Amino acid sequence: MKAVRLGKYDTSPELVDVPAPVVESPLDVVVRIGGAGVCRTDLHIIEGQWEEKSGVELPYTLGHENAGWVESVGSAVSNVAVGDPVILHPLATCGLCRACRDGDDVHCPNSTFPGINTDGGYAELLRTNARAVVKLDPSLRPAAVAALADAGLTAYHAARKAARVLKPGDHVVLIGAGGLGHIGIQAMKALSPARLIVVDRSKAALGLAKELGAEYVVPADGGQVGAVLDLTGGEGAEAVIDFVGEGGAVEDGVAMLRRAGSYYVVGYGGNLVVPTIDIISTEINFIGNLVGSYNDLAELMVLAAQGRVTLHTTTYPLTDFNQALDDLDHGNVRGRAILVP
Amino acid sequence: MKAVRLGKYDTSPELVDVPAPVVESPLDVVVRIGGAGVCRTDLHIIEGQWEEKSGVELPYTLGHENAGWVESVGSAVSNVAVGDPVILHPLATCGLCRACRDGDDVHCPNSTFPGINTDGGYAELLRTNARAVVKLDPSLRPAAVAALADAGLTAYHAARKAARVLKPGDHVVLIGAGGLGHIGIQAMKALSPARLIVVDRSKAALGLAKELGAEYVVPADGGQVGAVLDLTGGEGAEAVIDFVGEGGAVEDGVAMLRRAGSYYVVGYGGNLVVPTIDIISTEINFIGNLVGSYNDLAELMVLAAQGRVTLHTTTYPLTDFNQALDDLDHGNVRGRAILVP
Amino acid sequence: MKAVRLGKYDTSPELVDVPAPVVESPLDVVVRIGGAGVCRTDLHIIEGQWEEKSGVELPYTLGHENAGWVESVGSAVSNVAVGDPVILHPLATCGLCRACRDGDDVHCPNSTFPGINTDGGYAELLRTNARAVVKLDPSLRPAAVAALADAGLTAYHAARKAARVLKPGDHVVLIGAGGLGHIGIQAMKALSPARLIVVDRSKAALGLAKELGAEYVVPADGGQVGAVLDLTGGEGAEAVIDFVGEGGAVEDGVAMLRRAGSYYVVGYGGNLVVPTIDIISTEINFIGNLVGSYNDLAELMVLAAQGRVTLHTTTYPLTDFNQALDDLDHGNVRGRAILVP
Amino acid sequence: MKAVRLGKYDTSPELVDVPAPVVESPLDVVVRIGGAGVCRTDLHIIEGQWEEKSGVELPYTLGHENAGWVESVGSAVSNVAVGDPVILHPLATCGLCRACRDGDDVHCPNSTFPGINTDGGYAELLRTNARAVVKLDPSLRPAAVAALADAGLTAYHAARKAARVLKPGDHVVLIGAGGLGHIGIQAMKALSPARLIVVDRSKAALGLAKELGAEYVVPADGGQVGAVLDLTGGEGAEAVIDFVGEGGAVEDGVAMLRRAGSYYVVGYGGNLVVPTIDIISTEINFIGNLVGSYNDLAELMVLAAQGRVTLHTTTYPLTDFNQALDDLDHGNVRGRAILVP
Repeated sequence: MKAVRLGKYDTSPELVDVPAPVVESPLDVVVRIGGAGVCRTDLHIIEGQWEEKSGVELPYTLGHENAGWVESVGSAVSNVAVGDPVILHPLATCGLCRACRDGDDVHCPNSTFPGINTDGGYAELLRTNARAVVKLDPSLRPAAVAALADAGLTAYHAARKAARVLKPGDHVVLIGAGGLGHIGIQAMKALSPARLIVVDRSKAALGLAKELGAEYVVPADGGQVGAVLDLTGGEGAEAVIDFVGEGGAVEDGVAMLRRAGSYYVVGYGGNLVVPTIDIISTEINFIGNLVGSYNDLAELMVLAAQGRVTLHTTTYPLTDFNQALDDLDHGNVRGRAILVP
Repeated sequence: MKAVRLGKYDTSPELVDVPAPVVESPLDVVVRIGGAGVCRTDLHIIEGQWEEKSGVELPYTLGHENAGWVESVGSAVSNVAVGDPVILHPLATCGLCRACRDGDDVHCPNSTFPGINTDGGYAELLRTNARAVVKLDPSLRPAAVAALADAGLTAYHAARKAARVLKPGDHVVLIGAGGLGHIGIQAMKALSPARLIVVDRSKAALGLAKELGAEYVVPADGGQVGAVLDLTGGEGAEAVIDFVGEGGAVEDGVAMLRRAGSYYVVGYGGNLVVPTIDIISTEINFIGNLVGSYNDLAELMVLAAQGRVTLHTTTYPLTDFNQALDDLDHGNVRGRAILVP
Repeated sequence: MKAVRLGKYDTSPELVDVPAPVVESPLDVVVRIGGAGVCRTDLHIIEGQWEEKSGVELPYTLGHENAGWVESVGSAVSNVAVGDPVILHPLATCGLCRACRDGDDVHCPNSTFPGINTDGGYAELLRTNARAVVKLDPSLRPAAVAALADAGLTAYHAARKAARVLKPGDHVVLIGAGGLGHIGIQAMKALSPARLIVVDRSKAALGLAKELGAEYVVPADGGQVGAVLDLTGGEGAEAVIDFVGEGGAVEDGVAMLRRAGSYYVVGYGGNLVVPTIDIISTEINFIGNLVGSYNDLAELMVLAAQGRVTLHTTTYPLTDFNQALDDLDHGNVRGRAILVP
Repeated sequence: MKAVRLGKYDTSPELVDVPAPVVESPLDVVVRIGGAGVCRTDLHIIEGQWEEKSGVELPYTLGHENAGWVESVGSAVSNVAVGDPVILHPLATCGLCRACRDGDDVHCPNSTFPGINTDGGYAELLRTNARAVVKLDPSLRPAAVAALADAGLTAYHAARKAARVLKPGDHVVLIGAGGLGHIGIQAMKALSPARLIVVDRSKAALGLAKELGAEYVVPADGGQVGAVLDLTGGEGAEAVIDFVGEGGAVEDGVAMLRRAGSYYVVGYGGNLVVPTIDIISTEINFIGNLVGSYNDLAELMVLAAQGRVTLHTTTYPLTDFNQALDDLDHGNVRGRAILVP
């Protein structure tokens, strides 16, 4: 089959012929790819930034946001059948550890991560396992939802955590209305009655935020902290979800928090630096957020099937992977880029 | 191997030679039985009360409270190794359904229940799966803990739910200090700072309750509701856990509840009959309780290894199964009866 | 001032001149009534059904769903000022007991209930206390929201409890789309991403339910249990909120529940009768619901100000109280009847 | 009456005669002091460190950890009577704001803080309000529990938050077994089944920790992170409660956390500095902790009355306040210093 593989860091991946993956273990599921999201992380992988962290042996196939149709299944697979349309949770987990049994499968110590530490979805076929496949509603095309598998799932997971503490009359600030943020807005509108305040540097992003239902949008032009305090009667917001995580977003976000409020860290890159006296005197919290669980992804697919979470995508044939990566690198993709084999 | 099998309802089970179970599916685990609890449910099964509910085909091997050592494992089993001492969660679940993924595995629609609807542990060997086996601390002998696998797990599960809402100064009433109840007392002492009031008809049971740490014991002699109200300043208890569930226990239990309190139904047999106006005017709740999850069992084994939950047992050789069933039927077992092959 | 007072059970109340209430205690607030809801409970009070329960001494002024403007305040009142538009939580609570301090003020043992056990709002002025007054958004007219003070608050409270456990893809059944139910529908849409199934005998009520956003409506024509099971893939709903509570609604509701589901009792009149074995084998819960807390009412007023919860009302001059009571008794009120002094 | 007042920053407070406080508002409560804790914060106040923060006008009376007997009450006080033994929640709150109504009264924006921003308890009498007084069990002497009013309450509050997520088999690390920490240990033992690991520099403190029930003690000698990882199978602890908050404790504490674990910030002085990538990749949380609520204090008094939380104290006559402050400053107080008028 055709696959886009990275042979050497800091060089372009190449489209090559490789043997198709086959079912090896009883819980294996081989999926025919319908769409694979092209993500900024892929650029970082190519640059070698993930070399040590992932420990993957080159060459290998990129692509960690995948959806398609079940091609073949192992003998112990009972939840999907050949031909089913599916989206793939990024992790193939064990189902036997404490985390998996607690619904907290992203902390499974025995998982693999196709596209990161084993062959991914820039290919015709991909092997994952039965615990990773979420059956899709017939109304959803794999290529249209693939990019929700990782980025979207992360945004949903954070929104879901924050929604649990938000009540009518509360305010939630979303910092960053880009790839993750605009899914976060839609998820938050579906999950919570709180008022959304969206902060971003880009006018276009703020325009989209308004369309998606944000009650207030605030340009990140230096006056954003003051603007949020004004909108919240000087008290600050009950929750801040930070999809940026660097370049001043953290300091701003903390300054926007109400007493006893919670700050959800999603974006990363910078440092969280807060005097402990500020943490205790206002009794604020900082909540880490990784990608969501399998059940989170199943819930997100419900919202997608209901049309409550949608994604702008630009599709490229798999053979145009270089164009897609290039467009992403230069900010020329409208919405998310999706490779279709 | 030797196994105690029921060939016909309403007749004695028989010790017979049968082929030993072997690993058939990749997640299968065959366990050499170290101890199998003899439970009142076994008597009911023999009498045919479970015929329709379980749908099991006769003959089959009894025994649903099991512990022992791993004898052999399927190719996909990664959480235990041959020789490991284990206790068996009563259900062998799928790990793929929503319930399993939520940590709520007792509601798995694809589970089997060895000893109820497939061959159980009144035998030298039993087949379950990897999702059912909890590795034991080296300090715990299988025969000593086997009876915690079902009855004990049910009591722990209910205590754990109730403990979540109990604070210092609160009161919790436990109705029934027998097989389940005396595990419930120990679990509650480990999990909660609330004061325990134990109600039972038997003086011996109340004496044991006191030894196990109950702050107050109340004889179920007709004055129990008044006694509980006196102990709680006329307000009633924040929680009532009913291990009896029939013969007036339910009416008593409801009368012992404080406003906004919760009643945990564990024992069964009678009906819950409450005027809806009483439910809404005091805003009380009724909480159903089935057996606990796998993680509950793992937690219970921690308490057992710490010596915080202990069980009185009387062991019988497997060949004396009829004596054990007979002793149980006539109330002649001290603690729980355990068959040891 | 003018007040509609009940002088004798089973006779018509009368419009009389009485001394206006004045501030007596430091936390007292006297409110000029802008609207008082006419409720079925008022009919029951007149018939004497509440005589023993309320213990009120006749004559007294009816009216327990009130909103208006602050007329005068006691020396310790700091949260409202003269002239503020307010809605009144039905209970005037103490602020000193454990329940009040836990945000659970409806269980305050020291509360009074104007219109039930002391003079109510069928009058020009009413005395309550500072802990009962919720300041209204300037966009809300007291007469338009008065009926949310008790019936609406009860519906909101139940919806809020249920919403806490509902996820995308879950189903919630609302039995009864009348006075409380149609507020429940709107609250549920604001608070939860679950699919709403509304069951009612009345075609008109089901039509309104659809307009208010219910995904499915089911006529209570004998086939309602089957219809709900069909809509939920044979599994039943994660939550059932019963605004009826009698005449078969309870049995139906229990039959519509999914394993581990919860049944919220709001309506009353009948009995809850369930075999304990059914409660434990499916691990279902029954959750009592009284009127909501002060904070619940504040949240409901946020939704009202946002236009997410609206109420049909028909206003009557206070002098036409007999007409209003009569219209209510004969089912001739469109929406809720409101007396305006 | 006699009172110890601070007239000028950086000079010794003085014992002077001042008019006794009297009831001025309907919810006022005047308390005859039975004991007032001498706290490190008092030293900082004298040095002027709180000048700006508290904004208190000099001279004023020190003392913010108080217990005694009710001397007189305002007209609206219904929860205590003259003569009742009471401990004082540090804040006198309003009972009308959202925070007070949510059981979150420490975030009341209208509170006063006797001993910090108004006259405190280094005196014969002190004025607070009805929302601050917790009635004491007759077995508790005010002087014996006074120091639990602030420091103890803070430790209890943090332990209670952490206990909510801790299960049998989990580990919780307490950094610092001093004034707050040794209350935290006792509270944690009462509230949670988790294993306690206590880290401190002082051998004596670790010895006390062992006596109070800590399962493991670890000297803070540079090897503490490794020791905690060893004790937790290399995984880290589910919760870390940091009573120190400076001098490397924060970095250590973060390194001791398990994936998805939570770090409770109690002590302060240093900065929390964590790369956002570390927060998201392990999905850890940082939870701020202020003093506990009124209900927390009521619960702590239950544990004190049950003998489950005890405090070493050294009492000084009020006239020896200088000796007490001096002993505290030089580390010569065994347990907590208490002034008794």
